[in-house]
Amino acid sequence: MSRERLIVIGGDAAGMTAASQARRGREDLEILAFEKGNHVSYAACGIPYYVGGLIDALPKLVIRTPEQFGAKQDIEVRIRQEVIAIRPDEARVVVRNLETGQEYEEPYDHLLITTGARPVRPDLPGVEAKGIYTVSTLDDAQALRQLMETERPTRVVIVGGGYIGVELTETFHRWDVDVSLVARAPSLMRSLDPDMGDKVAEALNEMGIHLYPGEAATGFEEDQGRVTAVVTSERTLPADLVIVATGVTPNSDLAREAGLPLGVKGAIKVDDHMRTPAAGIWAAGDCVETVQLATGQPYWTSLATIASKQGRVAGTNLTGGDMAYPGTFGTTITKAGPVEISHTGVSETDLQGTGIEFAVGKAEAQTATRYYPTVQPMTVKLIAEVGSGRLLGGQIVGGAGAAMRINVLATALQAGMTVDDVATLDLAYAPPFSMVWDPILLAARGLCRNC
Amino acid sequence: MSRERLIVIGGDAAGMTAASQARRGREDLEILAFEKGNHVSYAACGIPYYVGGLIDALPKLVIRTPEQFGAKQDIEVRIRQEVIAIRPDEARVVVRNLETGQEYEEPYDHLLITTGARPVRPDLPGVEAKGIYTVSTLDDAQALRQLMETERPTRVVIVGGGYIGVELTETFHRWDVDVSLVARAPSLMRSLDPDMGDKVAEALNEMGIHLYPGEAATGFEEDQGRVTAVVTSERTLPADLVIVATGVTPNSDLAREAGLPLGVKGAIKVDDHMRTPAAGIWAAGDCVETVQLATGQPYWTSLATIASKQGRVAGTNLTGGDMAYPGTFGTTITKAGPVEISHTGVSETDLQGTGIEFAVGKAEAQTATRYYPTVQPMTVKLIAEVGSGRLLGGQIVGGAGAAMRINVLATALQAGMTVDDVATLDLAYAPPFSMVWDPILLAARGLCRNC
Repeated sequence: MSRERLIVIGGDAAGMTAASQARRGREDLEILAFEKGNHVSYAACGIPYYVGGLIDALPKLVIRTPEQFGAKQDIEVRIRQEVIAIRPDEARVVVRNLETGQEYEEPYDHLLITTGARPVRPDLPGVEAKGIYTVSTLDDAQALRQLMETERPTRVVIVGGGYIGVELTETFHRWDVDVSLVARAPSLMRSLDPDMGDKVAEALNEMGIHLYPGEAATGFEEDQGRVTAVVTSERTLPADLVIVATGVTPNSDLAREAGLPLGVKGAIKVDDHMRTPAAGIWAAGDCVETVQLATGQPYWTSLATIASKQGRVAGTNLTGGDMAYPGTFGTTITKAGPVEISHTGVSETDLQGTGIEFAVGKAEAQTATRYYPTVQPMTVKLIAEVGSGRLLGGQIVGGAGAAMRINVLATALQAGMTVDDVATLDLAYAPPFSMVWDPILLAARGLCRNC
Repeated sequence: MSRERLIVIGGDAAGMTAASQARRGREDLEILAFEKGNHVSYAACGIPYYVGGLIDALPKLVIRTPEQFGAKQDIEVRIRQEVIAIRPDEARVVVRNLETGQEYEEPYDHLLITTGARPVRPDLPGVEAKGIYTVSTLDDAQALRQLMETERPTRVVIVGGGYIGVELTETFHRWDVDVSLVARAPSLMRSLDPDMGDKVAEALNEMGIHLYPGEAATGFEEDQGRVTAVVTSERTLPADLVIVATGVTPNSDLAREAGLPLGVKGAIKVDDHMRTPAAGIWAAGDCVETVQLATGQPYWTSLATIASKQGRVAGTNLTGGDMAYPGTFGTTITKAGPVEISHTGVSETDLQGTGIEFAVGKAEAQTATRYYPTVQPMTVKLIAEVGSGRLLGGQIVGGAGAAMRINVLATALQAGMTVDDVATLDLAYAPPFSMVWDPILLAARGLCRNC
């Protein structure tokens, strides 16, 4: 080949951000991206809203099509082409054309692995029945939306009480069907501490979602190959449609088979420049391990923000730039009906057994002044290191306007602020937006030594 | 007198917060507060919403009544009693009972001046006519609400394009009357730079508010003592009701007459413990000068957050505690109809002539992902010092959900962050709440050297 070539494996946030950034860095580079699905560069986070009918057309979730990448950026995208092996010694990848089944090889000078994460499909009796879905790709989204519009299931059971499971309660609630959620853990959302997860459960209960926390799904009943019920340790829940949202895991099989080192949860190990130890091989996004900056410990999570940033860093560095991605606080936000949920840094639960001594500050407060008509309850929970007073993490659950306050805590974490610092922040107040003492200030005041 | 006595002059945010804090600090202290109006401890910031009919009853704006202060905290509050002189040499104040006209003196051991700020009533022909109001006290609020309910004016003219004038456009717009706003400056909101103020004007225009920026009011026409029009340099605007909101000024007459030193805009000079140079005399809230932490320069503004915090500091220190109020970034937020507005730190305009060299980063972005149905445009403007890259200030104008992002910038300011730091913040993303790259990150990226 005449031009130096970058091959990207996986065409979503990390991969296509990196490809675009690499094009900015080097006009002369040949850039070739393989995607096994039908779509690249799409907003996976928008899927619950599309399935819920809040977004009318699927193409709205597509940020850029393969054709646009070709025409505008000279980036070749091959969809329905799955990379099935990496051969680091030969600097080649083996690709299978999923349309024809044909296999072929392509050489690279630079290789970027952005294979993302995939939903965990638990190995339970009946899990292969029709009517049981995971929600991860635009193809899943399209199938589910069509199902809701045509077959009109009336009883939906969601298996899994994490972010995706909780978001999907709103999705199906919008269709005015009976929605149940089964979760193995006794409280919802493992990324929150149980006291905060219970607040989410309260809000979902009020929405009319039937919650069965602390009940592991043990299997699925079916009739003529179609799911008819979810069986838990406690009961049998009739279901026309089942969503399995029991978590995601890094898609690192290719990397493992190529001999690349893996870390937390099997995620690919990279340095802060998104380099793997193998010459010319980079990795970014949901398939890589990163660092939880609150503790300095290895960490893995699946977030579009991280994928985009890491993609940008990888694309910069592999074209001769120098940019670091030191890690993340894992700042996350979502909503389900009227309840907003966010967290950053580490929780009490995360810190159990780490030897880090911590204290907790909590404010049960409001999103606005008590007399303003849109006022809603909200709770802020802060975790700080005993001794230094350094903020380690925060969690927020509350009504409209509550959760975006997490960005204040993410900023305070990055600055290495103590709770004393947080307690004296000059936060904005006006009746529609906050209390005179913002709930964050109240939570911090409960922890600080001199305020 | 047998007990050591604290006298508080002025019974709103700073004064009553200080009184409460002093009671926590010392059970034995006699605490006596004088208020010349009818109410203490009320939410002045709620007045526009009460007048607009969004809050049904005036008592909702009262946080605590004089009786409650007496019964619950052993704090004596005397309303309709105006302190008309301070005699520092004798440690006494002279009080006039506004009901009887009688004057009397009271001795103090500690004196706290929390006389607040008052609206500037411009000295224009006709300004004393009936139907011309300022909006500052609960009495103003009551009068205006009653007027809207009974006399039903149909043409309201607001004179003044600052925060209060802009907030009041929404207030009267709610009554479905014809609302005009006259402002001397060519762009709205002097606390914002003109480019950002113009965005506010665009939004008000869309609401149907008639804006006349760059037109100073020169007088008022009247008929039988009642206002009938506002006269500007360009036109005569018929009016049944006129609101004068041409700014506020520190209420420091008493302090000046007592020989206390004054600073910016005539505000009382205090140290970071809220002490004046006179023995036993403290001052806090809208009547005192503070420090703009972004530049270290003396600064004055009128904000409930500052008053509450300073009151807390004064109440702590005057009972033997040790707490500092080092200054403020002047973080402010408001809304008018669909547009949200906030700022923190200093603006381009503030920096003109200071010798500080600065650069501007601006992002024209959205409050949510482009496909989410509630998405609204928003603009973030950042000001940073050239060389160091240190953030100096920020301004935000946009739709619902935009303005509270100012708290991220207030936190970044307090941490002394550079724009490079801001550009790499781990801010939250989900489709209803933000773009993958939060508008703050985009604005910072435009300024930073290596991101």
